[in-house]
Amino acid sequence: MRLFYDIIADKRDKKVLSKEDISDFLQSYLDGTLKDYQMSAMLMAVFFNSLNNEELETWTEKMLYSGEVLDFSDIDGIVVDKHSTGGVGDKISIPLAPLLAELGFYVPMISGRGLGHTGGTLDKLESIPGFSVNIDKETFKKIVRTNKMSLIGQTPEIAPLDKRLYALRDVTGTIESVPLIASSIMSKKLAEGINGLILDIKIGEGAFMKDLASGTRLAKTMQAIGRRFGRSVDVLFTNMDEPLGYTVGNALEIKESLDVMQGKYVPQVTELTLRMAAVLMKTFKMTGSVEEGEEKARKMLETGRVLERFAKTVLLQGGDPRVTENYSLLPESRFKKEVYAANGGFIGRINALDFGKALIRLGGGRLRKEDSVNKAVGFVFAKKAGEKVAKGDLLYTIHFDDEERLKSAEEYLKDAVSISENRTKGRDLILGSL
Amino acid sequence: MRLFYDIIADKRDKKVLSKEDISDFLQSYLDGTLKDYQMSAMLMAVFFNSLNNEELETWTEKMLYSGEVLDFSDIDGIVVDKHSTGGVGDKISIPLAPLLAELGFYVPMISGRGLGHTGGTLDKLESIPGFSVNIDKETFKKIVRTNKMSLIGQTPEIAPLDKRLYALRDVTGTIESVPLIASSIMSKKLAEGINGLILDIKIGEGAFMKDLASGTRLAKTMQAIGRRFGRSVDVLFTNMDEPLGYTVGNALEIKESLDVMQGKYVPQVTELTLRMAAVLMKTFKMTGSVEEGEEKARKMLETGRVLERFAKTVLLQGGDPRVTENYSLLPESRFKKEVYAANGGFIGRINALDFGKALIRLGGGRLRKEDSVNKAVGFVFAKKAGEKVAKGDLLYTIHFDDEERLKSAEEYLKDAVSISENRTKGRDLILGSL
Repeated sequence: MRLFYDIIADKRDKKVLSKEDISDFLQSYLDGTLKDYQMSAMLMAVFFNSLNNEELETWTEKMLYSGEVLDFSDIDGIVVDKHSTGGVGDKISIPLAPLLAELGFYVPMISGRGLGHTGGTLDKLESIPGFSVNIDKETFKKIVRTNKMSLIGQTPEIAPLDKRLYALRDVTGTIESVPLIASSIMSKKLAEGINGLILDIKIGEGAFMKDLASGTRLAKTMQAIGRRFGRSVDVLFTNMDEPLGYTVGNALEIKESLDVMQGKYVPQVTELTLRMAAVLMKTFKMTGSVEEGEEKARKMLETGRVLERFAKTVLLQGGDPRVTENYSLLPESRFKKEVYAANGGFIGRINALDFGKALIRLGGGRLRKEDSVNKAVGFVFAKKAGEKVAKGDLLYTIHFDDEERLKSAEEYLKDAVSISENRTKGRDLILGSL
Repeated sequence: MRLFYDIIADKRDKKVLSKEDISDFLQSYLDGTLKDYQMSAMLMAVFFNSLNNEELETWTEKMLYSGEVLDFSDIDGIVVDKHSTGGVGDKISIPLAPLLAELGFYVPMISGRGLGHTGGTLDKLESIPGFSVNIDKETFKKIVRTNKMSLIGQTPEIAPLDKRLYALRDVTGTIESVPLIASSIMSKKLAEGINGLILDIKIGEGAFMKDLASGTRLAKTMQAIGRRFGRSVDVLFTNMDEPLGYTVGNALEIKESLDVMQGKYVPQVTELTLRMAAVLMKTFKMTGSVEEGEEKARKMLETGRVLERFAKTVLLQGGDPRVTENYSLLPESRFKKEVYAANGGFIGRINALDFGKALIRLGGGRLRKEDSVNKAVGFVFAKKAGEKVAKGDLLYTIHFDDEERLKSAEEYLKDAVSISENRTKGRDLILGSL
C-alpha cells in the first residue's frame, strides 16, 4: 500500500488515483488506520480537483459495499426510487411513492431530514400521529414486498462509510463538492437494490444548485455512476426560485400532499408528481411517451387507490390512517397571521430561500442535526408568482406558535414577496430533463 | 466567533479571511475546540488558494506568539540568522555562524534535522563527540550573549503552534505550500529575536524548489513577512543540481566545514559562506559593497579566529574542541569503496538527489523522524561537474559500514555521475539574489 501522504498529494496535484489507491485509502479509513485529519485533507483536495468517472465509480462502490445492499431481485417487478436535491415546499416524494406503487412499481424509499433552509420528507411524515420512519431493515423489506412501498429513514446498515464521510464533510467545509454529493446520494440509493432512479435537481435561489450549469454537472456525474452500476438514472431540473406549491411546513405539506392523492389538481405539486411518474413509466417501457404516462397517472390519482395505498402505508408504519380523510388529526399551530398586499399589481417573486429560513425561525426546520422540529408551523400561500393582486388581498398566512419566533421569522420575510406593476413571467416549473 | 465551517469554506472559495477569522481559527486549534480534521481541511484549502500578505502576517504572528519570543534588544549589536531550504552537502551554517560572530554579529542559530534526501545541521554537529544541540532556552541565550553564537535545535518554547501544524502537514499532503512553508520558517526565525535573516533558497534537482520561479515566489513571500515585522530578509538563490562542495555525509561535512574555517579555499563552500556573510554586512552597512565584505570575510577566515570561535562554541555546548585540529576524533566509517570513471571525458552532472537518497540507504539520513543516523558514512568527491577525467580516474569514494546498505545505496548511484565527450558548463553556484 502506498503512503497516505502520497495518495493525498497525488489528488492534490491533479493526478488520477488508481482503483487500488482509492480502495486502500477508504478501507484504511474504515479500519481506523487512516485518520479523520487525513480524510478531510483528501476531501478538500477532491473539492478542488474532483474525481473522474473511474475514480468516482471506485469511490461510490467502496461506500456502497461498506454496508448491506438490499436485494429485491426475486421480486417480479421494477424497483425504483426518487431523490430530490432539496428545496422549500418540496413534498413530491409523499404523493409520488404511492402513485408509483399503484402504477406497478416497487418503491423502497429511504429519505432524509431537513437541514438548513430545505425541508425533509421524514420530518413531514412524522407529523402524522404515530407514523414511524425508524423501521428496521427486515421489516422495511417485508413492507416493500407486501405493500409495494415504504418510506423510512437511513438505517445503520446502509452505506455506513457515507455516514462517516458526511459527518466529516459537515464540519470541514467539504459539503459543496459535486463528486462527493453524487457518490453520497448514489451509494445510498444503489444500496436500496433499485433498478431505476429519478432525480429531481432543484435549481435556483432556494436550492443548493444556483444555476442549470452546476445542476447539469451534478446530474451527469450521477448518471455516469448509474451507468457504471447498470441502473437507469432519469433527471428532471426543476425551478426552486419560489417554494413548490402552496404550503411550506411539515403538517401543512402533508395536507397538500393528501389533496394531490385525493385527485385534486394542485398546481406545481400535481404537475411534478405526474411528470416524475410518467418519466419512470417511459424509461421502463410501460408507456410509449411521457404524455401518455402523465394521462395514466392522472387517471390513477382520480381512482382514490393512491390515497388508499398511502393510508395502508401509514397503518403499516404505526401511524393513524384516518388523517387521509380527517386533516384535523394533524398538528395545528395555535395562531395564524394573515399577510396582505401593500399595493396592487402582479406577484413577481416569492423568495424560496427567505421562506425556508423563516420556517426555521418559526421552529419548523433545523439548523443543527440535534434540533427538534415544530410540525405545525409554516406558510400557506393564497397567490403564487404571476398572479394579479389588489391592494389588501391576502398573500399568505403564517401558522405560528410563539410571538417571539414570529418576529424572528418576519425579519426574513420583509422582501420575500415582490409585487410589480407589470406581469413578469418567472421560469417554468420544469426547466429541463436529462 | 464565526462557524469553523464558514471560515474554511471562505478560504476554499478564494475569499480573504479577516484578521479576526484567522486569529480565532488558530487560537481555537491551540485551545482544542477546533479539531485536527478541520485544520487539515483548512491547510489543504490554503494549499490551493494561498494566503495574501495580510492573511500571512496574521497567520505568522499567531504562530510566532504561540510561544516565547527571545529578546536580545539589550545587546549592543546586530542579531542575525541564516536559513537554507535544504539541500545535499549543504554545510554552510557551520562555518558561517562563527564567521559572522567574528565579523561582529550575534548569531542565535536554531537549526533542523535532516529529513528525506536533505541533510540537517543538527545531525552534522552531533557527529562531534559530546556536542549537544539540546540546550535549554536560558543557557542558549547566555551562550549567545557571551560567545556571540550558539547552534541548537528547536526548543519547546519556540512557536509550539508551528510544531503542531508541521506535524499535521507532514501526514496530510500539505507540506508543499508556499505560504505554509514561509510562515513556518519565519515564525521560528522571528522568535529568535533577530534583526536580519539571510535565506539560502536552493533550486534544482536536489532541492525542494525545482525552478527559480517557485523559489522566487517563496522568497518574496518570506520577504513580505519580514517587512511586516520590520526585519530585513536577504535572499540568495543557489544551485542544488549537484551536491554542495566535495562531501556528503555528517562527519565528512564537518571536516569540510573545518577546512573552510581553517582558511582553506574549498570551492563552492568557501564561496557561498563568504557571499552570505558579505550580503549581511552590506545590509547592515558594515561595508559599502558585497565585494568589500567578501574580502573582509576572506581575511577573517585566514586569521584563525573563526576556527577558534567554533572551537569555543563546541566546548560551551559539551563537545570536544580538539576535533578542530584532529579530524580523527570524528567518527570514521569502517570501509571505503572508490568509484572510477568508466570512460574519459568531462563530468556533466553529479545528481544531488541520487546522492541524497543513496546517503539515506547508507544509513546517513532518515526517512522517518524517529530513524537514527549513522554519522560516519557518506561520499567524498574527487572531481566536480565540468572537470576533465580520464578512464579509470577516481570519481568519488563511498564511506560505508555495511555491505548490504552499500548495495542498496548503489542502486541509486548507477546514473548519478554522467561523463560526456564535450564540456557542458552547468549552472553557476549563485543563481541570483533578492
